[in-house]
Amino acid sequence: MAQNINLAVIPGDGIGPEVVAEGLKVLDVALGDIKVSPTEYDLGARRWHATGETLPDSVLEELREHDVILLGAIGDPTVPSGVLERGLLLKLRFAFDHYVNLRPSRIVPGVQTPLADPGEVDFVVVREGTEGPYVGNGGALRVDTPHEIANEVSVNTAFGVERVVRDAFRRAQARPRRKLTYIHKHNVLVHAGHLWRRTVERVGQEYPDVSVDYLHIDAATIFMVTDPSRFDVIVTDNLFGDIITDLAAAISGGIGLAASGNVNPDRSAPSMFEPVHGSAPDIAGQGIADPTATVSSVGLLLEHLGHADAARRISDAVVADLASRGDAKRRTSEIGDALAARVSG
Amino acid sequence: MAQNINLAVIPGDGIGPEVVAEGLKVLDVALGDIKVSPTEYDLGARRWHATGETLPDSVLEELREHDVILLGAIGDPTVPSGVLERGLLLKLRFAFDHYVNLRPSRIVPGVQTPLADPGEVDFVVVREGTEGPYVGNGGALRVDTPHEIANEVSVNTAFGVERVVRDAFRRAQARPRRKLTYIHKHNVLVHAGHLWRRTVERVGQEYPDVSVDYLHIDAATIFMVTDPSRFDVIVTDNLFGDIITDLAAAISGGIGLAASGNVNPDRSAPSMFEPVHGSAPDIAGQGIADPTATVSSVGLLLEHLGHADAARRISDAVVADLASRGDAKRRTSEIGDALAARVSG
Ligand SMILES: CC(C)[C@H](C(=O)O)[C@@H](O)C(=O)O
Ligand SMILES: CC(C)[C@H](C(=O)O)[C@@H](O)C(=O)O
Repeated sequence: MAQNINLAVIPGDGIGPEVVAEGLKVLDVALGDIKVSPTEYDLGARRWHATGETLPDSVLEELREHDVILLGAIGDPTVPSGVLERGLLLKLRFAFDHYVNLRPSRIVPGVQTPLADPGEVDFVVVREGTEGPYVGNGGALRVDTPHEIANEVSVNTAFGVERVVRDAFRRAQARPRRKLTYIHKHNVLVHAGHLWRRTVERVGQEYPDVSVDYLHIDAATIFMVTDPSRFDVIVTDNLFGDIITDLAAAISGGIGLAASGNVNPDRSAPSMFEPVHGSAPDIAGQGIADPTATVSSVGLLLEHLGHADAARRISDAVVADLASRGDAKRRTSEIGDALAARVSG
Repeated sequence: MAQNINLAVIPGDGIGPEVVAEGLKVLDVALGDIKVSPTEYDLGARRWHATGETLPDSVLEELREHDVILLGAIGDPTVPSGVLERGLLLKLRFAFDHYVNLRPSRIVPGVQTPLADPGEVDFVVVREGTEGPYVGNGGALRVDTPHEIANEVSVNTAFGVERVVRDAFRRAQARPRRKLTYIHKHNVLVHAGHLWRRTVERVGQEYPDVSVDYLHIDAATIFMVTDPSRFDVIVTDNLFGDIITDLAAAISGGIGLAASGNVNPDRSAPSMFEPVHGSAPDIAGQGIADPTATVSSVGLLLEHLGHADAARRISDAVVADLASRGDAKRRTSEIGDALAARVSG
């Protein structure tokens, strides 16, 4: 457990800097004696406009020297789609081998849900982060002609699937319900799907106390709205994980509350924590963004670094704050202050 | 408009034969003087177990001679995953060039929804049916070793994307709201996504009265539960369409109500109509499956054949039946009888 935290911060675009400021505020009070020395990195739309750079190698190597990264939000409508996603966000996930993309969902008092009767919802999605259709192995021929053909390749390896499946089994085993649901589409994507299936079956033999079930991704979206309480730990591929976690966020408070960790469990490179929401340019600069997802991401960050107590205090503060929310609109900094006050106790 | 309908019927597995019987009952009364001559084809799990065949070429050629196909449900847990999906269901969609997979969703009185406040929901998804990750261009190396690699290729062509996008624009133009939402993930799947985007932008110039918006598939799942009334016509790729239509069914009565058409708009081969639900082996043979999705699929079939009046009478009957449903459980044939009675007027 690092005593001082060598933190890299990427505030990013839009509301990113605003929510990150509150995240750092809460981080500070949560840690007590432990010092955080944050280094800010200017990456995102502004830098790209100014220099054409998304993530220079030199910056990547500097980031690598940190214990952990906190990211606000990346993206702006003025940047062509894909440039910052592939050139920055996904590049970080791939370069730092963030093979566990961790996204918890909970419905607690005060959390808004569009569902009439969700039941008790408390699950975590372990989304694979370094393979699948996200690998960037696509290409196109005869672009912009009537004969264009555009391919995207989903690449899946025994190595890559096994490590994330094993991580998910471990997490399931540590939770009271000990249940793992894996999601794929193995009746259509037979090669990738059967690799996933065989892997879950094989690794599962080492975790006999974890019960396992399988859902096709299409059926999983149905259960997410008709019976979300059935889920405990979900493990799935990169694209299905992207989809199911946004839906999970939608039923449990919206992406304004959804936290995530891009985790490298082997610690061969820094893990990165970020809210699931985007840069929300429409409300940027007004001080009205909800920083809760960022604060919860800071909680995941602390848990990852072994500061379980501090992490628990943050999640308790978030739960208490949600429960006491009235209709009054609070500003970004007011929510941050309220959370910091609860954390410092 | 064919006067006599030369219909191929594939009852299939599980509840398939039960729901198809009701579909045919309603078809008969809906048509009045027009004759239907149904030919049954024994395909599915039973045939595969008996003969190892999924869809022999000779049967495919016989099916091709029909005006249209009605399918119940295919699949059984005793058949390895993928065998009947790839070997029968998808083979039919590809062989008969069903490039428009049509899936309407509506919330009308009596329709159960898990959403607390869905608003007015009435949209149709145009799912591409012959490209994308469904093409079966996958493969695996070193299977069942620690060095396995399994790939799946999504193939997308200007030809294939343009024809389905054009179909969707036409449908949007014919509806009161004239709104088209296209769904992809072009910030990650940049090659396929940008082909979709350019195509929608180019074809859209021919439909200036149709308003267009875009959603990433992850964001689309959010709106499907927080604001489904925003959708009018959705067009999307094969896999995203698979996912979003199951979610759409979940919020608008469940897959027990969801109808679909695998349509070949060029009529170079028969179109095929089927409920979205599967074979439900757990309730098969008990006469308790809800045949509504099949009956609604028969409505889509009639519309496709140009029998708009008969189609309208079926959808009115379904709406009226849903509105008058109490808590009493009715048997499959009772629901079919009730619908047939309403259709015959
Ligand atoms: C911005 C995008 C590249 C990203 C993803 O698809 O992973 C986002 O949707 C997420 O879920 O973190
Ligand atoms: C059974 C399966 C091959 C099929 C699909 O994925 O298209 C089904 O889910 C559907 O939506 O019709």
